[in-house]
This record gives sequence, C-alpha cells and structure tokens, in this order.
Amino acid sequence: MLAVFGVLGAYTLRGQSRPTIPASPARSAADLVGDWIFEMDGDAQPQRVTLVAQGSAVRDSVRGEVYGQPFISSFIGGRVQFAVGSYLWWGQLRGDTLRGYLTSGTGTDSSAWIATRYRPPAVARSFVYAPAGYRRGLSSDVSPVLRLYAGDTVRTTTVDASGRDANAASFDTPPVTSGGNPLTGPFYIEGAVPGDVLVVRLLRVRLNRGWAFSGTSLVDGAIQPSYAVERRNTPMDRTWLLDTIAAMARLRTPSSALNALRIPLRPFLGAIGVATGGASVPSSRDSGPFGGNMEVAHLHEGATLYLPVTTMGAYLYLGDGHAAQGDGELTGDAMETSLDVTFTIGVKRWGFASIPRAETVDEIMSIGVAGSLDEATRQATSDLARWLEADFAVTATDVALMLGFAVRYDIADLVAPWLGVTARLPKSILQTLPRR
Amino acid sequence: MLAVFGVLGAYTLRGQSRPTIPASPARSAADLVGDWIFEMDGDAQPQRVTLVAQGSAVRDSVRGEVYGQPFISSFIGGRVQFAVGSYLWWGQLRGDTLRGYLTSGTGTDSSAWIATRYRPPAVARSFVYAPAGYRRGLSSDVSPVLRLYAGDTVRTTTVDASGRDANAASFDTPPVTSGGNPLTGPFYIEGAVPGDVLVVRLLRVRLNRGWAFSGTSLVDGAIQPSYAVERRNTPMDRTWLLDTIAAMARLRTPSSALNALRIPLRPFLGAIGVATGGASVPSSRDSGPFGGNMEVAHLHEGATLYLPVTTMGAYLYLGDGHAAQGDGELTGDAMETSLDVTFTIGVKRWGFASIPRAETVDEIMSIGVAGSLDEATRQATSDLARWLEADFAVTATDVALMLGFAVRYDIADLVAPWLGVTARLPKSILQTLPRR
Amino acid sequence: MLAVFGVLGAYTLRGQSRPTIPASPARSAADLVGDWIFEMDGDAQPQRVTLVAQGSAVRDSVRGEVYGQPFISSFIGGRVQFAVGSYLWWGQLRGDTLRGYLTSGTGTDSSAWIATRYRPPAVARSFVYAPAGYRRGLSSDVSPVLRLYAGDTVRTTTVDASGRDANAASFDTPPVTSGGNPLTGPFYIEGAVPGDVLVVRLLRVRLNRGWAFSGTSLVDGAIQPSYAVERRNTPMDRTWLLDTIAAMARLRTPSSALNALRIPLRPFLGAIGVATGGASVPSSRDSGPFGGNMEVAHLHEGATLYLPVTTMGAYLYLGDGHAAQGDGELTGDAMETSLDVTFTIGVKRWGFASIPRAETVDEIMSIGVAGSLDEATRQATSDLARWLEADFAVTATDVALMLGFAVRYDIADLVAPWLGVTARLPKSILQTLPRR
Amino acid sequence: MLAVFGVLGAYTLRGQSRPTIPASPARSAADLVGDWIFEMDGDAQPQRVTLVAQGSAVRDSVRGEVYGQPFISSFIGGRVQFAVGSYLWWGQLRGDTLRGYLTSGTGTDSSAWIATRYRPPAVARSFVYAPAGYRRGLSSDVSPVLRLYAGDTVRTTTVDASGRDANAASFDTPPVTSGGNPLTGPFYIEGAVPGDVLVVRLLRVRLNRGWAFSGTSLVDGAIQPSYAVERRNTPMDRTWLLDTIAAMARLRTPSSALNALRIPLRPFLGAIGVATGGASVPSSRDSGPFGGNMEVAHLHEGATLYLPVTTMGAYLYLGDGHAAQGDGELTGDAMETSLDVTFTIGVKRWGFASIPRAETVDEIMSIGVAGSLDEATRQATSDLARWLEADFAVTATDVALMLGFAVRYDIADLVAPWLGVTARLPKSILQTLPRR
Repeated sequence: MLAVFGVLGAYTLRGQSRPTIPASPARSAADLVGDWIFEMDGDAQPQRVTLVAQGSAVRDSVRGEVYGQPFISSFIGGRVQFAVGSYLWWGQLRGDTLRGYLTSGTGTDSSAWIATRYRPPAVARSFVYAPAGYRRGLSSDVSPVLRLYAGDTVRTTTVDASGRDANAASFDTPPVTSGGNPLTGPFYIEGAVPGDVLVVRLLRVRLNRGWAFSGTSLVDGAIQPSYAVERRNTPMDRTWLLDTIAAMARLRTPSSALNALRIPLRPFLGAIGVATGGASVPSSRDSGPFGGNMEVAHLHEGATLYLPVTTMGAYLYLGDGHAAQGDGELTGDAMETSLDVTFTIGVKRWGFASIPRAETVDEIMSIGVAGSLDEATRQATSDLARWLEADFAVTATDVALMLGFAVRYDIADLVAPWLGVTARLPKSILQTLPRR
Repeated sequence: MLAVFGVLGAYTLRGQSRPTIPASPARSAADLVGDWIFEMDGDAQPQRVTLVAQGSAVRDSVRGEVYGQPFISSFIGGRVQFAVGSYLWWGQLRGDTLRGYLTSGTGTDSSAWIATRYRPPAVARSFVYAPAGYRRGLSSDVSPVLRLYAGDTVRTTTVDASGRDANAASFDTPPVTSGGNPLTGPFYIEGAVPGDVLVVRLLRVRLNRGWAFSGTSLVDGAIQPSYAVERRNTPMDRTWLLDTIAAMARLRTPSSALNALRIPLRPFLGAIGVATGGASVPSSRDSGPFGGNMEVAHLHEGATLYLPVTTMGAYLYLGDGHAAQGDGELTGDAMETSLDVTFTIGVKRWGFASIPRAETVDEIMSIGVAGSLDEATRQATSDLARWLEADFAVTATDVALMLGFAVRYDIADLVAPWLGVTARLPKSILQTLPRR
Repeated sequence: MLAVFGVLGAYTLRGQSRPTIPASPARSAADLVGDWIFEMDGDAQPQRVTLVAQGSAVRDSVRGEVYGQPFISSFIGGRVQFAVGSYLWWGQLRGDTLRGYLTSGTGTDSSAWIATRYRPPAVARSFVYAPAGYRRGLSSDVSPVLRLYAGDTVRTTTVDASGRDANAASFDTPPVTSGGNPLTGPFYIEGAVPGDVLVVRLLRVRLNRGWAFSGTSLVDGAIQPSYAVERRNTPMDRTWLLDTIAAMARLRTPSSALNALRIPLRPFLGAIGVATGGASVPSSRDSGPFGGNMEVAHLHEGATLYLPVTTMGAYLYLGDGHAAQGDGELTGDAMETSLDVTFTIGVKRWGFASIPRAETVDEIMSIGVAGSLDEATRQATSDLARWLEADFAVTATDVALMLGFAVRYDIADLVAPWLGVTARLPKSILQTLPRR
Repeated sequence: MLAVFGVLGAYTLRGQSRPTIPASPARSAADLVGDWIFEMDGDAQPQRVTLVAQGSAVRDSVRGEVYGQPFISSFIGGRVQFAVGSYLWWGQLRGDTLRGYLTSGTGTDSSAWIATRYRPPAVARSFVYAPAGYRRGLSSDVSPVLRLYAGDTVRTTTVDASGRDANAASFDTPPVTSGGNPLTGPFYIEGAVPGDVLVVRLLRVRLNRGWAFSGTSLVDGAIQPSYAVERRNTPMDRTWLLDTIAAMARLRTPSSALNALRIPLRPFLGAIGVATGGASVPSSRDSGPFGGNMEVAHLHEGATLYLPVTTMGAYLYLGDGHAAQGDGELTGDAMETSLDVTFTIGVKRWGFASIPRAETVDEIMSIGVAGSLDEATRQATSDLARWLEADFAVTATDVALMLGFAVRYDIADLVAPWLGVTARLPKSILQTLPRR
C-alpha cells in the first residue's frame, strides 16, 4: 500500500497553520466517527475518509478507495491505533486533529501522518466577494480569498481580459489590474482532495457594463498560410457596445459594411479552473484538464462545470468574461467584458473523470483540450463514453450507438497552443437510460 | 500564353464521338456569335468562351479568363481565323463544331484545337432516372447515365452503402449491387468546364424504405488508445426501423438499455461529388475538394451544394443516403439507407472556390476535408473568408469580425483517412452586407 | 465462410482472356496438385491455394488462410468435386483452368468460381523495358506493359515529374509525356493476390542525365502563416547541374549567396506503388498504403520495398526520380530527374503488413502515410512493432524497449495532402533476436 | 512609446533587495556611461541599455530597440534628466542605481523607473555547485542557487527523473528528492532581459553512476488504438546497466529475446529551460518556447543551446539526464540517470528568436514544441528559415533551396501533451554563405 505514498522526506504538510490544541484523548470509536482528511508525509494525494463505528472499532465506510480498508482501531492511554492492512497507524487526537506515525508490519517504513476532521457548517452559506486583486496564474501557493464548503454560494465579479472592471467607461479607462486574463480567486474548497470533482454551478452570469472589446483578425490556427498572405487587414475600432435590452452587441465605430451587424449577447465565463498542484502553475491564458481558459460558450448562466481536483482545496479561479463568441474564439479576443457572477460549490466522487465536464439545461458535455483538434476530439469523445458507462447501466456498444446518432461537437477554441473541442449529448437521450 | 496548355501530343480529345458534319463555312462574325467550349490538344483545361460581335469581328466577352483576350476574327474562303495575342488560330466550321490548328507568331508551336457550340435547350427539362447500375469510383472515364444542362432537374434514387435499394426488406435481402458506397451516376453536365462551380439543388431527399443499418462501435479516429483498450463491445443487431410518421428511428432489437432510444430522422446524402479529372479516380468512400463522401448532415432536402469542377462535364455522382447521423459519423456507418432524390443542376463562375460550399435556408457553409481536423478547419475558415470577400464589399477585417462572432463549426466526419469540418455562417449576418 | 465472398452478382471475373481449352478431365488428385489462383464470382479477394495430395484426395497446404480448409476431393466422370466445410465446389478441368460452381450445403447459395494454375517459369527471367508511354494514375484497369513472375528482373527507365527523359538537354526540351509525375508501368505480377506483399528489390537506381529541376519555395505545410506573410521569394533558375563524378549537385545559375552550394547526389525513386483495386485509381502524386509518391529517400539503389497487394496482379508503377532531397521534400519538387532503374520482383505472405515497408543494407523501416504527421507516425510505429512481433520471438514489451532506444524517424514528405513518416530500426538490433 | 510599458500600477519591481546607498549625484555624462538595466514600473519588459557619451550628453548606443532613441541628458543639482522622444525621465544616482520618474510631454502619464548598472566581473568565474535541493517547476519566484554573468562556468550534477542521484545503487535506494523530473537550479543570469537569448554551452555531460531506468511500453501518442488493443505487455525489470568502458547499455534482467541487446551510450540532458515570467510556472515535465523537458538527444556534451529569455535573470534549470534514447522518447521514460554537467553561460541579442535553437559541432537546429508534430514542424522550419535570413545575406528563396536539400528533421518527443521536432542543417552548408 505504501507504494502510492511516494517519497518520504521532511515533514512538509502544506501549511494551513494549525494551532496547538490541548490533548483530548480519544477513548472510544465514537470520538473518531466522522469525515477526516488524511495527509501522509511526502504524499501528494490527501484522502477523504469517512470513519464509521463498527462495534468498539472504526472502519472506513468507503470501499475501493486507496485507503478503503478496515481501520481496526484500539485505544491505549489516549493514543489511538489503527491496524490497516499490514500497517500500523498510531496517533493522538487534539481537537479536530489526529497526528501520528505510520509503521509497516516489519517496522522498516515510517511516515508522519495527520488527519483533520472535515466538519462542514450545518447550513450552506452565502458570500459576497468584491475582489481586491486578481491573479494571472492558477496557483495553489497563494492565500485563498475565501474558504468554501460544498453548498456555499458566492456572488462576485470578474474583470475583462485587459484588467478593466464594471466601472471602466471604455478601453481608455485605466485597468484596475494588469492585463493577461486576470482571474478572480482563488477560492479554497474545504474537503476537496485529489480524485474529487469540483462542481461549479453558475447561478448567475450577467453583463455589468455597456461595452466590450475584441480582436480584429483571424488567428493563425484558423487559416491557411495562403490566406494569411492574401488578406489585407484594415484598422478598426475594436469596441463593441452591449445593448442588454435588445440583447445585442454592435460595433461602436463599424466599417460601413458592418454598420448593421448585430450579434446576440450570450455572456459566459471564458475561464474557470483549478490549480494543478505540484510545482507548476498554469497561466490564466492556458487551458487543460484543470479547466482554465477553455472559451466554452456553454459556460453561461445556468450551466454546471465539473473540474477534476488535483490539489487539496482545489483553488478555484474564474474570469475572462465574454459577452458573445463564435466557435473557436477566432479573433483571439472574443467580446471581452467584465461580469457579475454567482456560483454554488459542490464536491463529488465521480469515477474516472479526468477532463472538465459540463451540463446545461439540455445537454451534458465533455471538454477536450489538447494541442490539436484531433486529440481534443479523442479526449472529449472518450471521456463522454466513460461518463455514460460510469453513470448508466450501458455497454460500450450502447454508448457507440447513442454517440453515433446524437453527439454534437463544438470547436471551442482555436487559439494556439491549446485547442478545445466539446462533445455534447442531449439529456433527452439520457432520460430513459437505466442508472447504475 | 501557351504555357497553360501543357504538353502537346497526339490529338486525344476525350472522345464524345462527334459525327462528321457537312461543312457550312463561316462567312461572317454572326456565324460565330454565341457560347463555345474550346479544347486544346494536350490541354487539361477546356474553356467556355462567349464570342460576341464587334463590328465585323468577334471577341471573347469575358475578361480576365485564360483566353480572355480579343479574338480578332477574319474569314477567308470558309476558314475562320482568330488572332489571339501573338497566336493565330484558324479553323473550319462544321455544324456546331469549329476545328483547326493554332500557331504561334514564330510558327514554332502548333496545336490542334476544337470548339463546340454550347447550345442549351430553350426550356429546362425534367428527367426520371431509374439506375440500372451503380459506381464505386468517381470516374470521368465511364459513360454518363444522363447528359444535363444547367436548369435541368432529375428525379432518381440511391442505394444504401451496402448496395441495397428501396425494395430490400432488410439486410437479409441480397443487394442489387456490390457494397462499398455505390453511387448513382455519373451525370454529365454540358458546358461545365474546369474552373466552374457545379450547383446541385436538392429539391427532394426522402426516405423510401422502413429500415437502415449502422455501425456499432466508435471509430478509431474518435477515441484514445486507452479507451480502445478498456471498452468491451457487445454483439448488437445494427438494424434501425425508420418511422416516417413519427419522424423517428429506433433500433429493431435494442439492448434493454436502449429500448427507448429514439433518433429524429433527418435524411441526407452522405456522398455527392464530381470526377477529379486527370488519371486519378476517387473511391466512392473518399472525400476531398471534389466533394464525395463528405457525410455533411446539412446536405438534406432544401440544401444547395457547390462543387468545384475540375474536368469537362463535371461527372456528378450521388448516394450514401443516411436517415440520421450525429457529428463525425462516429460509428463508421451512419444510419445507412436508400433514398428518393430530386435535384436541379446549375453552373456558375465563382472566383476562387476551391473546396465544396453549401447553402441551406438559414446558413452558408464551406466544407473542409483533410487528413486532420486542424487542416480541415483551416481550409473551411479560409474558404468562407474568401467567399465573403468575393461576394460582398467587405474587408478581411470585416470578415474576421463576422466569423469571430457568428461562425459555427461542425465536425462532419471522423472516419479516417479523410476528416471533414464545416464552417457555417447564418444568412441573417449576410443580409445587410453590401454586395460586390 | 461465404461471408467473405461479398455480394454475388453477374459473372464478372476481370477479363484476362482465357482461350477455350479442350477438356482434359481430372481423374485423380495428381491432376490437381500444385498452385492455383482461385477467384470467386463477385469476390474482390482472389486466393492463392496450394493443393497437395492427401491419399486420393487433395487438400490446401496452407492453414489459417481464408480458404485454409481441407479440400476433400472426389472425381466423377471428369468432374472434380471439393467439399470445403459445408460448401460443395464442383468444376471441370480444361488445361490449366478449373471452372465451376459453388453451392452451400443447404443449396441456397450459388456462385461461379474459376481456378487458374499458377505455373511460374523454371528460371527467373530478365527484361529490358523501354517505356513507350507513361501513366499518371495507378490503375488496374489498363494493359500491363509486362507480365512478371517472382524472381524476374526488369531494366527500365523513368522520366522526371515533368515528363522529360534522359534525352532532354534541359527544361527547354519538350517532354516526352505530359507532366504530373508520369510513371513507368504497370507491371503485372503473376500470382500476386490481395493479402500478399510485393517485394521490389532496387538493384540499380542511377542518374542518366546531367540536370534536374526543383521548386524554389517552402511548401505551406512546412511553415507558419506568419512566416508565409513575411517571406519574400525572389526569382531563381530552378535548374540543378548533376556532376556524377563528384557526386554533387549545384545550381546552374545560383544567386551569389548560393554560388558554392553543393548537394551530395543520392538518387532514389520518389514514387513506387501498386494499384488499389476496386473502383478507385490513385493519382501518381498520391501516396498511401499502396505506396505511390512517398518521397522516401531511402528507396535508393540497394533498397528493397515491400508493398501490400490489394488487387490481383498488383500492377506495379514507378517513377518520380530524385537526384537528391532533404527531409520532407520541402520545396514541393525535389531535384527532379530521369533515372535508369533495375529491379527484381518477389511475392511473399507476411502476416499483417498493411503499409509499405522497406529495407536497406543497415535498416528496416515502416512507412506511414496520413493526413497528419502524428497519424503517419502512429501508423509507422505500430507497423514496425507488428513487424517485429511477427518475425521474431519477442513480446510487445521487448519491442517497446528496442524501439524506445533505437528507433529513428524521418519526416519523409510534408507536401499536402499526404504526409509521410518512416520509422527505422538498425538491423544490428535484430541480429541477435530469436526468429519465430 | 509608452504603449509597450503596459499597465501602470503600484510600484512592484520584483524584489532583489537593493540596499539604500548614499547619494552620489551624477554631475556629468561620464557618470552614466556604461550598461544599465532599465525597469519600468508595471512593465513586464526590462531593457538593457548601453549609454555612451555624446559630447556632454549620453545616448543609447543601440538602434532599433524599444528604448533605442537618443537619451538627451542634462544634469541639474544632482538630478539627471533624459529627454527620450516626447518623454522626460528624471532620476537620482545612488551608487549603481538610478531611480526616478517618467513623465510624458503632456504631463498626463507618470511612472516610476529604476536603472541598475550592469557591471560584469572583469574575469569570467568558475563555480562548483553541489545541489542542496531540486525544483519541479521552472519558477522565477524562488531564490536562485547562483547568480551568474555571461562567461561564467558552472560544474554541477543532476538527479534522475525519479530524484535519485549518483550515490543511488539502484532504484531501491531512496531518492534524495521527490520524483517528477526534479531539476538543478535556478541559476540567475545577471543582465539577461526579455528579448535576449541565453546561451548554454554544455562543456561536459557525463554519466556518474552505473545504472538507469526506463519505461517498458510504447506511449499512446506513438501508436494506433488498434495496436494498443492487440499488444500484450509483459512484466520486465526496467533497469539498465551502463558500461562506460564499452559505452554500451544493457538490460539488467533482460528477457531471453533481449539478452544480447546493447544500446550505445549517448548521455544528454532531457531538460534545460528558463522561467517563463508572468504568473505561470511550467512543470519540469513541460516543454515549450522556454525549453524545458524537450528530450532532444542532440543536447549532449559539446552542444550549445539557445533559449529565448522572457523574464529578467532568465532563471536557468537543467536535469532529466538520459544515458541514451531513441527518437520520440517512445517509452515515456528514456534511460533515466544522474549526470555530471559543466556549462558556460552567454547572453546575446539575436533578432527574432522565439523558440529554442541549438548547435553541435556539425549542425545548427531549431526546436519546435507544440501539441502536434505538424505544428512543431512548422515552428522549427519557420524558425530555421528566420535564423538563416537573419544571420546570413540570403533571400527566402536561397533558404528554401538550402532547406529543401539539406534539412533533416528529428521527432524528438512523442510524449503528450507537448511534442517536439527539430529541424537541423549541416554547418557545411553554412560555411560558404555570406554573413550579414
């Protein structure tokens, strides 16, 4: 079992400071019952464990997880001891923290561990968060702006890709933060551990100002070299006016040809993502399995996004509001604007979910992100198939027939280097399927 | 100018037999006025030329074409002579055929040529064509089943990809022709020359039997190797029942999970294409700039397809009817069935149209076909941009802004080796644009 | 078993005319012993069968083939009858031809068949073939220029991609055939049936004139749109002088910068391929599983090429000689020239060989051809792995370790739409491996 | 000009602490002559400026840079003032630091700036650095292990991808740091600013222990789904023994088939890279324009690597030693081992160098890294063309002819998501070219 714990080194639990608590010795299984987050020294993969009473002992309620084994407990003079497989864990309870060492049966391995009680508030909470700053990377190494539990709701705002917020009268107003897709966050999600899926329900995604800006030239990834050579771009004011009454955008200073061009408003978040853990920090312009700058126009009000959690606390970031966008974000910048956003958090275990998934009122979708559309498509299709096989009592052949006649793909993002493809399936197809 | 004529060799005009006609010598420009198809010995590129009277001479009415130069004519004893640039063309008129030789000013080059009067019928015609056989290649080297002029309409049928027609009760009925996507045709289009665009208006695309068959496994191009390894396909009857009243398909013998699966019927032609000319013959399973097996679900009743013509007469083929299909034709076979089809032909000159284009009641679209989705997307986007710049008084920047906020892509075909992507734009965007 | 025979229709064996032969009734197994080519009416897949005596009956000597079953023979009044599985084949022998009908046990299926004795000459032959014409498509529907048996050797010539031969003094000399990569051939290979691999040993590939021509601009597939926009091509004489004494090429009229540019000569055949069978005909500019215009610089003198046969007789074509080439054929045309070529033919059965393979004195290689380098690389790697697993007693893990530390890839062809990648392994790695 | 400075905000120069220095007022141009690093408040792009005396004023010696304008200086009571275009910069000199404010002619913009004298040591230095820790990300937000100037040489060591160093007897020895490609560094390069190219000369790259480990299965990116399904991997000891006398590697516990497998040793650094600046931190497993985990086997002893600098100080990291590798790093892990490394640093300005370049004794090469081989190839080819056009007096056409007949590509890395392709050109081709 230790194999999964990785390398043992200095005791370096990532430092949420934990005050020393007077010892309140565990005397019986009842003292241990409940949800705990176990962290192993040098182990990148904390675990959420639910201990339940089994006679005078406790055991892990979940089967099939890494630690999914009986925790045969005994209590000796204030110390608790678990026999888990051939390993012996002993520790001391102080408040909501269990702390101790782990020894193999042969006594040759030894590792510090800590378990922190996961004790969500009785009632889901609502927060209003007015950002004081923004982030251009999705780091887990910065202080969270809020610590949330599953069920909590946050009302906040995002600035546009250039760092301008709702108060900016135009692109001539100085930004409130540097450009480069600054994001709101991070929000720390208590109890979210690697292997979980973070659920982000977008209750409200609304425009909060009357203008946006866009690019004015097709990105290289969308065109042939021969077209690049022959095209002649002309200067153009790249400001759009957003008429929320008519729900239409128009260019502020259109060319004569585009005088009547009207684009339906459909605000969404271009970027929602979590930290990747480890030593890497994605840029707020990157996308990948962690979500990020996916440019998926379906992430509008009413949508739910599912993000694989790879670091404890998840560290949620969001921003890059778009008032509207065609497929592929062809002009590099879509209709970039600030947004009012309200979201609710959830956390779930969900089989092998390795890339972002989303859900709208009508559809489910998997979001592939890769360096080629072909690979992004393979990711999205494979994940959607796995999703169906995991949630419904269907075979791979059933899945092939459903996808074969009902899948729709979007090319979400053509801005190099990360390209995105979504594979969507109507929920009407799912309604009659037997659940697992 | 001769450079474009290619290599001079033996006189090998592709042999529509032309009966010898008593000479009716041309005596004046009036005898020559009208549309002609010029073919040059050894030249792969026949030309459609409209000669108009200019005083006592004729000239080509069209500028900017390869032959778009004055045809300064003179008439000597029943022979006509054109001075075209530094070349001298002389010939003799027999009925609707001019035949002669072409000499450079220096007398060193000499090439046979023939011009055939293009004389479409006064009234567009309607044909009913009941196929006696089918083709598995898009060849220009076989006898056309019909010779059509622009404006003519044909009512015909197509068999399914396995060669079964409307009379087949099920897959157990022997096919009427070998499988492998047999196509109806070819239809020869009089007056269509390379550089033209063939217009195929699909007036009627209807189901004509109650069943279809499909694949039952996701194609390799749509999935990751890891999913290929983990999936377990199960045997499945791949027959679908087509309920044209409810406009729904259902599996004939569904697994219990798919018992309630219903797929909306949306019949379309998976394959419409023209011959490629030259020595190559695409398979009826191939797709490319010539159209072919594109699997574009928008090619349903009411749609118009535009195909670049690369060989004289175009040689139109169609087939591979699908009752319904998700994006990508993920199961290799879509819902394969026979169809009743009625179409009308047109021919147009259309700037630089090098890949298939289509039009539905709501949208225009360019259809990219390549060995990767990325390249297919670049083709489709570049062509749609060129289309807009050619037909409307818009700049490349105007185009970028329209595509950037209104383009939609479909992944039409994920069946290797030729993948297809369509780039679509709503006609509502076009309505207010100034035409060129 | 009949499933593989495809659809039964009119009797349409592709017509090598076979003279009527006086009946010489088969009276015993001895009359049937030997190699035969069986063709089934409507079956695209002829089979080579070796009948051996087994007591008074004959049986197929090969196991595991489609027809790899006992042919239980009986002889009734000049008619021979085989019981093969639940099917009954009866026929009459006339000279070297057996002709008859095939009936299922239930009597419901019936199909004509013909078997032709495969009787190679006792001694391998040598031919000198001076081409009278060339082909721009790899068709199986044209008359072969020679009919060869395994072991036969042919000495011939190829023209350059523009149709100029050894006698052309320069590009100003008129070509002997139209351009577009005209090929020498086809050579019909007696006894080669689908599923076989055609072996082409290149005994001699030599320059036969003192000049070549090339392109002068990097192809679109090799460059970014941004470079396409910024580059400024300049006019350049694209003629190279080939100095076979120094084994170097130099530009005839170099820019001052390239005055001293010398390129080592390394003549090879840019195109070697077979017909694809069915109704499709690849262009001589195409490449694919059939070989064709692969631009693999390793196909020089001394190399052996293996091509999967997909149509009876294989129909071998070759041409597109290059005096030298960098990877990728970056300028669209390499150093195009005419060649003297001598090759020897072989035919072998070789497991699952589905793409071209080649062998030089030092290396073996698999040649992937696809619409993206990624897919071409996957093809080449997978095939090389299969090759090793088929020929040597090695596991997939053994193969991974060998390829992981000894494979070398070439990007052979970057000229769209078909891109090529070779995966090469040194023979030194193979020498110590146990053979299967 | 200010446009390039980006957004002005709080004064946040990235904090190398600079001690307060007693003011030593600048009284004449002579006090300012020399190299300075200018940093602008809120500007991500510091600049290296060489001020030279021009009469009683100073000016920037370099033309064409962002600040490449006359710095018309005046000196008023210990304050220096530059008029640069329509902007006025004033500051005070304290020791080697100039600090002040910048105002536009209209007085509306104001930004703090600082200039630090770049004063390299008179003599290049040599360091021996024994790593105390390793990094799994290429961050510019950590303390450098050494601060180097151009010309300095460092002798150090790298651990293998699993964190084991030269002292590890085998994979059973515990690692000295966690796995995941831990890198040695970062080395801060004084005076290196964005737009520079960091030069890393690999004087010595040697094995320092007798074993390595590898993967044992072909990575998904290299194989077709069908091969993934059919292959059967077998357990295998993945340890290699490195015989530096014979310069060969062999498996420690080979399968019987691979008993005689010997792989020539060719040690190189799989990862050399710099920080990306901004808020993102690449993982030590990533590669890109910043270099990183490129797996380019040419980066062996004797090679020179050129890396585009995008953050002040460059922050150089290196590691991931490989004893040998085939193309593509097909088994995910190559022959992973620890190394002794000695390198010398340089810094240069070099036109538009946006991706890594390298040089060996025989060749120059550009290294493309992208999500598809096609795009990586386009990057590498375009950059190599730009390199030639920048350094030599050649046209785009000259370049096409050289690349067309002398380029060689390697597929360096097939491990998703970042794939690598190098485009190489022999130096022999370059020797006769006229330099710019």
